Amino acid sequence: MRQVSSKNTNERLKLRRVKIDTYRENVAYLHRECAIYRAEGFQALSKVNICANGQRILAVLNVVDDKKLVLPNEVGLSEEAFAKLDLAEGQLISIEHAELAESMNAVRRKIAGERLTQKDFEHIIDDITERRYSKAEISAFLVASGQSSMDRDEVYYLTRAMLEVGKQLQWNESLVADKHCIGGIPGNRTSMLVVPIVAAHGMLIPKTSSRAITSPAGTADTMEVLANVELDIKKLHDIVRKHRVCLAWGGRAKLSPADDIMIAVERPLAIDSLGQMVASILSKKLSAGATHLLIDIPVGPTAKVRHMRQAQQLRKLFEFVGDQFRIHLEVVITDGRQPIGSGIGPVLEARDVMQVLLNAPNAPDDLRQKSLHLAGRILEFDPDVRGGKGYAIARDILDSGRALDVMNNIIGAQGAQHQNFELGKLTHEEVAPEDGTVIQIDNLQMARIARYAGAPMDKGAGVDLFKKLGDNVTQGEPLYRIHAVYPADFDFALELCQRGSGYTIGKREDIPKAFVEF
Amino acid sequence: MRQVSSKNTNERLKLRRVKIDTYRENVAYLHRECAIYRAEGFQALSKVNICANGQRILAVLNVVDDKKLVLPNEVGLSEEAFAKLDLAEGQLISIEHAELAESMNAVRRKIAGERLTQKDFEHIIDDITERRYSKAEISAFLVASGQSSMDRDEVYYLTRAMLEVGKQLQWNESLVADKHCIGGIPGNRTSMLVVPIVAAHGMLIPKTSSRAITSPAGTADTMEVLANVELDIKKLHDIVRKHRVCLAWGGRAKLSPADDIMIAVERPLAIDSLGQMVASILSKKLSAGATHLLIDIPVGPTAKVRHMRQAQQLRKLFEFVGDQFRIHLEVVITDGRQPIGSGIGPVLEARDVMQVLLNAPNAPDDLRQKSLHLAGRILEFDPDVRGGKGYAIARDILDSGRALDVMNNIIGAQGAQHQNFELGKLTHEEVAPEDGTVIQIDNLQMARIARYAGAPMDKGAGVDLFKKLGDNVTQGEPLYRIHAVYPADFDFALELCQRGSGYTIGKREDIPKAFVEF
Repeated sequence: MRQVSSKNTNERLKLRRVKIDTYRENVAYLHRECAIYRAEGFQALSKVNICANGQRILAVLNVVDDKKLVLPNEVGLSEEAFAKLDLAEGQLISIEHAELAESMNAVRRKIAGERLTQKDFEHIIDDITERRYSKAEISAFLVASGQSSMDRDEVYYLTRAMLEVGKQLQWNESLVADKHCIGGIPGNRTSMLVVPIVAAHGMLIPKTSSRAITSPAGTADTMEVLANVELDIKKLHDIVRKHRVCLAWGGRAKLSPADDIMIAVERPLAIDSLGQMVASILSKKLSAGATHLLIDIPVGPTAKVRHMRQAQQLRKLFEFVGDQFRIHLEVVITDGRQPIGSGIGPVLEARDVMQVLLNAPNAPDDLRQKSLHLAGRILEFDPDVRGGKGYAIARDILDSGRALDVMNNIIGAQGAQHQNFELGKLTHEEVAPEDGTVIQIDNLQMARIARYAGAPMDKGAGVDLFKKLGDNVTQGEPLYRIHAVYPADFDFALELCQRGSGYTIGKREDIPKAFVEF
Repeated sequence: MRQVSSKNTNERLKLRRVKIDTYRENVAYLHRECAIYRAEGFQALSKVNICANGQRILAVLNVVDDKKLVLPNEVGLSEEAFAKLDLAEGQLISIEHAELAESMNAVRRKIAGERLTQKDFEHIIDDITERRYSKAEISAFLVASGQSSMDRDEVYYLTRAMLEVGKQLQWNESLVADKHCIGGIPGNRTSMLVVPIVAAHGMLIPKTSSRAITSPAGTADTMEVLANVELDIKKLHDIVRKHRVCLAWGGRAKLSPADDIMIAVERPLAIDSLGQMVASILSKKLSAGATHLLIDIPVGPTAKVRHMRQAQQLRKLFEFVGDQFRIHLEVVITDGRQPIGSGIGPVLEARDVMQVLLNAPNAPDDLRQKSLHLAGRILEFDPDVRGGKGYAIARDILDSGRALDVMNNIIGAQGAQHQNFELGKLTHEEVAPEDGTVIQIDNLQMARIARYAGAPMDKGAGVDLFKKLGDNVTQGEPLYRIHAVYPADFDFALELCQRGSGYTIGKREDIPKAFVEF
């Protein structure tokens, strides 16, 4: 048989932008009657490489039967993929089979119970960052390396790999303070108080925060009610150089980019493993240039960490990995039995924060006290602050209005928010079903109600708590108010609230004990 | 504040069919300026419930910025989702938040190392079958229950849950024979020989097979070269009642539907765990009504099972679970060091099978011998066949042409294939780079080359092997020929073949030993 040589290697498809936002997954659209490729031939592995100008991006393949979407001589790319390839429509593109990323072999070894090396983690994190993993593959890695299946050296390797794949900020100072909470407690906006207090003392604290993924508000979402938080790396640098402080969204700075990709899969799965949590947080904080770091682990029946033993285990792991990087790291274990402050949702949480900064009489005291304790501990990183005196210094700074001044400086430097976000006008007050004492507030359910009401997308949506643990209530007395901006969201929140209010009324002696280790 | 009640619970969106085939994942398309819902509010959890007429299906949400695709008062559904909902375009639809399936709690407990109960597995399998799991969630379950993390009772529970969620065929006979190979060996089309031989003896053998997912051909793909394999459950029953045999695709019969969903995630991840494999195979075979089952485990350096110890472990697990269901199950361990027969790809494999049935002089002897051994073992399930005599009976049936007669009957009953599939006309002959002996043929690479060439989509694509293990070759002598139908596929296969031919030439003494336990 004669060897027939193909003359088609130069055949290409035309690039087309498909205005579909596929949320952190690249999707390529190929017509079923594609002029060059058998579209369905790629489907089983569900991934293809899109190649042009020496670039190559991985995408999930969808087969299209509608010529309005893509023509047989075109390949369509979803918004994110199109942006990433950064070529004009009509440019010529080719397609390749995409095999499993090489590093999936290491994932398979991890599934089989093997210990992975520094090199293995580097390959995995590199492939994840370059988006060579599908969501199902990321999920496989997260589960395989979840729970107790990584030893502490492996957690260190993973952290290092995640750190090294991204950018790192350099401040060239011996004390760069930072704080981080492992999350899970609605309304817990201590950063917006701790940072101004610590900065007022003169300490360098360039705080980068995340947006909510599955929670009703992240610090970045709440700070955005007051100021611009989307700073590029140059702007961020300039502000910190000048003011020694910022409260910005970290997403623009490309710190620990693998983390952003992994948590987008991990959070919806609700599979928080201790090792992944430590690697995620430390890679982010180390890449932001922190030298002194305070970690807050809230413990409670509906918190991420539910038992003191688990909190201690997590603390040791943070300490071990922190020590490898030679950063000064301290861990506090705090009361995570209920939401902090009154508001849940960006506008409501920003209100709480400003009330504390303004020393308003109705400012939520739990938020104030927790922030003062955390700020106090960070102030004691300063060698000139005597052990045990941090709290008093923090209180003086807050009471004197100097923390408020710093917050106003930050807002000025980052740019005041020009939009005036209002509280949602659709409201519902949930009332006590009987007389008694509030003995439980379910963090997860309160977060979910606020999210269904529209937070954080709608900044004015959320839940405003009137009663906290230990408060006495009489039947019919309001427990909290739901705020929504849009009717559909209001209906969702109401229906969820009817299925479970999140509050338990009972006898005072049934309030669970708090675990605190400050 | 006055309680504002929403009057919008009756607002609905119009259903629109979006002609995108999203391959086993439901996708819903919502315009960013949707009239009722904040589309982006649903994105973090990436899933929504689409509700209409009391039905509810889960879909991944994509946000659209193109009114040609969906209007702000519409919700679009991808092909499979639209078909599943089974409503006309323009029908009114509402959307709900989709929380994690309840049974994900059990998956999380499995990740944490707990042992799951029969009830847990039932909930998980029910949720997977109802498509309440995303691919990432299925992946999490597969990894969590992978490798040695399920004990044998759990494998039984899983098998039972998978069996009970689907339909089950009933034949009301005391001996219903079946066979299954765990896969991984290209060209291994023994079923198409074993089934006619066994049926010629008079034994009931209603064989349902799968299509290839990531391999270049499944038995159903190859049988389809000769006959119609898409039989609905009634047709299948009628044929088996009349002829006591069939060679059909199992996909139409809805046997073990959870398995179809799980392997679509598992195969691309290439994470075959022993427990999942046993549950997958036994749930399929039990639901097809088998009472006597022969399992083929090929072992070799590039097979799914690479070591004898692992094969033994897998055998014990098959035996344990089979015993719980009181079926007669036997396991044989076969030579998996290289492809079986000459052809890889539907047309080429069908040619090999027909050559053996026709007793053609150039029929591949390894395919013939393996099929006779397997058929012999199944014939010995017959109490009237003396132990050790099965092989000779099988050989007599094959040599006499009675197996060919049965195959022709099957083709007639199922309907002869009206399309004449031709071998791909684009060909390349790969030649020996040096003199020596063939000491290794990489099953994975040969399968991949055939797949890149277009198999199984293009039935005439594939690889035709001229040399097998132990054959002497001289430099320049052809090892195999690639066949492709389309130029792009031909290029893919050629390029892959250049990166690695799949053949190793060396010294006879370096041929790995075969592990066989018949």
